[in-house]
Amino acid sequence: MEDVLARARVVMARIEELAAVSETTDGLTTRTFGSEAMRRVNGIVGGWMQSAGLNVCVDGIGNLRGTQTRDGRPLLLLGSHLDTVREAGRFDGPLGVLTAVACAEAAANGRYGALSCRVGVVGFSDEEGVRFGTSYLGSDVLAGNPFDAARLSLVDAGGVSLAEAIRAFGGAPETLGADALDPDAEDGLVGYVEVHLEQGPVLEANGLPVGVVSAIAGQSRFSFRFAGQAGHAGTTPMGLRKDALAAAAEFITAVETHARGDEGLVATVGQLDVKPGAGNVIPGAAAGSLDVRSPRDAQRHAACARLRAAAAAIADRRGLALEWREVQSHDATDCAPGLRKALAEAVGQTGCRVLELPSGAGHDAVALAHRLPVAMLFVRCRDGLSHHPLESVTLQDVAIALNVMDNFLVSLAQSPPSAR
Amino acid sequence: MEDVLARARVVMARIEELAAVSETTDGLTTRTFGSEAMRRVNGIVGGWMQSAGLNVCVDGIGNLRGTQTRDGRPLLLLGSHLDTVREAGRFDGPLGVLTAVACAEAAANGRYGALSCRVGVVGFSDEEGVRFGTSYLGSDVLAGNPFDAARLSLVDAGGVSLAEAIRAFGGAPETLGADALDPDAEDGLVGYVEVHLEQGPVLEANGLPVGVVSAIAGQSRFSFRFAGQAGHAGTTPMGLRKDALAAAAEFITAVETHARGDEGLVATVGQLDVKPGAGNVIPGAAAGSLDVRSPRDAQRHAACARLRAAAAAIADRRGLALEWREVQSHDATDCAPGLRKALAEAVGQTGCRVLELPSGAGHDAVALAHRLPVAMLFVRCRDGLSHHPLESVTLQDVAIALNVMDNFLVSLAQSPPSAR
Repeated sequence: MEDVLARARVVMARIEELAAVSETTDGLTTRTFGSEAMRRVNGIVGGWMQSAGLNVCVDGIGNLRGTQTRDGRPLLLLGSHLDTVREAGRFDGPLGVLTAVACAEAAANGRYGALSCRVGVVGFSDEEGVRFGTSYLGSDVLAGNPFDAARLSLVDAGGVSLAEAIRAFGGAPETLGADALDPDAEDGLVGYVEVHLEQGPVLEANGLPVGVVSAIAGQSRFSFRFAGQAGHAGTTPMGLRKDALAAAAEFITAVETHARGDEGLVATVGQLDVKPGAGNVIPGAAAGSLDVRSPRDAQRHAACARLRAAAAAIADRRGLALEWREVQSHDATDCAPGLRKALAEAVGQTGCRVLELPSGAGHDAVALAHRLPVAMLFVRCRDGLSHHPLESVTLQDVAIALNVMDNFLVSLAQSPPSAR
Repeated sequence: MEDVLARARVVMARIEELAAVSETTDGLTTRTFGSEAMRRVNGIVGGWMQSAGLNVCVDGIGNLRGTQTRDGRPLLLLGSHLDTVREAGRFDGPLGVLTAVACAEAAANGRYGALSCRVGVVGFSDEEGVRFGTSYLGSDVLAGNPFDAARLSLVDAGGVSLAEAIRAFGGAPETLGADALDPDAEDGLVGYVEVHLEQGPVLEANGLPVGVVSAIAGQSRFSFRFAGQAGHAGTTPMGLRKDALAAAAEFITAVETHARGDEGLVATVGQLDVKPGAGNVIPGAAAGSLDVRSPRDAQRHAACARLRAAAAAIADRRGLALEWREVQSHDATDCAPGLRKALAEAVGQTGCRVLELPSGAGHDAVALAHRLPVAMLFVRCRDGLSHHPLESVTLQDVAIALNVMDNFLVSLAQSPPSAR
């Protein structure tokens, strides 16, 4: 365990080093797609990859890739993303890239014996989607997912198009398709495994350092608006009101009540805008957002239908109008049973209780699952806090995550899992 | 009735004329305290008062006053306010002033026989309080209510103090006390009676043109804030959330439920501000306003205590913090039993069903009640709409209001009511 702690210290020191690489000078960490900070980070991490014996390149979309030399064995990809949100934490992304580099180093040092697969490490160029309001630019290219012209013509806040940003970073927007993983060229693809901080409170609440992701939740987002009748708060009796905020309040309570009783589902009203918004005026309109997620698509669809019906019933009963619009919807991604089972066994070998939990947030694995089997290992984060400078993971938990990945790779030395 | 309809047409035409007197050039009506528009309106209405045989002056706070010459009979004051909110309706204020002028004209013409009192008409200079965020400036001075130096140093949006505005309008802020009504100088005060549009939907819902105000509601205003824990809408299970908006929603529902079951009371959450206010983030804070009104102070105090306890219980149960602050509180004003009874009889004489109803909005009568008996007659307004350019009262309803005031004054010709 002393040895794995030392390797975890290296991971933590490297995470610290990357946190200082920012496109801002405010002492915080902000690295968006195509920025000079991304170029510097690719250089730094690329150096560590080379030291681990990997052949390093930056692909057309700016992903940093390092792979062991082709020798007939199929490829196992490890990694995460190197871009960040604005004023980010240190761990969201880098934790997965640097534990992957640590595994590549261990593989090069023979720690896993004769592995049945080659190890590759990827640092994705755009998971957060901050600059262009997208997500999964890097992993979409690696997976060979459709990447249409409309997407390339998206512009950032400064008026720079995505195509221009790709060219400025050294890539070629016209030939992104050629950067897709090719199973034949790799002698087969074992899968993609990502270590990531949980970004939620479940592991901490369970007193566990790590957990195995069962699925990445599907998500539906809606906007809704109750329209009633503004009126004088003093002169309008309760029975003659059409109070839009009272209707919205009843709906918000219904959302919470439903989600509490629907195991595994989460539903959130995060925005609410009340008009006219004066203390002595009955609200005439209340517009909000609804976010519904579940690892099971059928559960999510049923909940969405039920909540929409609840909103309509509330509006009807109160004589209000309801506007309802689906803003976004994407399905859940199941982790590959074989990789997931191998990860769970690897956790069990450390002596930790094995907890399998869904991910409520999206990850590169969502895009990659279209091309190859995926699995994820979550690491406990303090107070469930993420996307914040105070995001925190302990050295001990990183060591346990490395230990799990070691066990996982050793198990692969025996035989590649039947992934899915 | 033909004659009273003709007089109502005059009232309506004058209301129309005043609606064109605005400090803005947008075609809408805005007349705030001390504006040139107020000076012009005082000139126009003062001319009508003089034609009705009244002695006219503008007092130190800008109230337009017209009274019959002193002759030993006590003074009955009629009137309302001439200032408006921004982008106001035509009737809020002018309806009461111009029906009062119509009564003074009828008195001068001998319609009421030998009245036991003199008739005075007042057009108050500031009921809405738009310019300085106050209310009742005009009626406070007339009533001789405390008017302290702090109030005189309030400044408007342009940095002009109230004292400066009073001087610019021709008044003297140092001697406002001398403008208070003096019972001895008037040979006694019978009371103050105001005609006002209802600003609510009760008369319309009851199919009645007018109603007698029983009391002007007392009011308590609070600000509240639930503070929980912001978090990722996807990664935080329902059971581990401290959702401030969900708490506020539960409270808003409790407010509505309580008020619906507490006859005569109204309670409104008109503002709600949700932080951070993103669709994918659990709200960490929700701050709002609570407005509670009742014609019975004991009922209002009990409701406020109960709602505060409900908010505290919701916060406790959910593990949230609650901030609670009383912003404003003033007691209910009862209308004087004698005047109120006389008004009710006058309504009954028109053949209309007599409905007595509280006023949920404040009026100049609140300030005047400290000095003399007060009563109010409400006139039906369309859709309960007020403080809006579409504010509407019908000619027929104005005629009925005039008829009621005629009956009321004729009853005073016999004997002044034992007011309270």
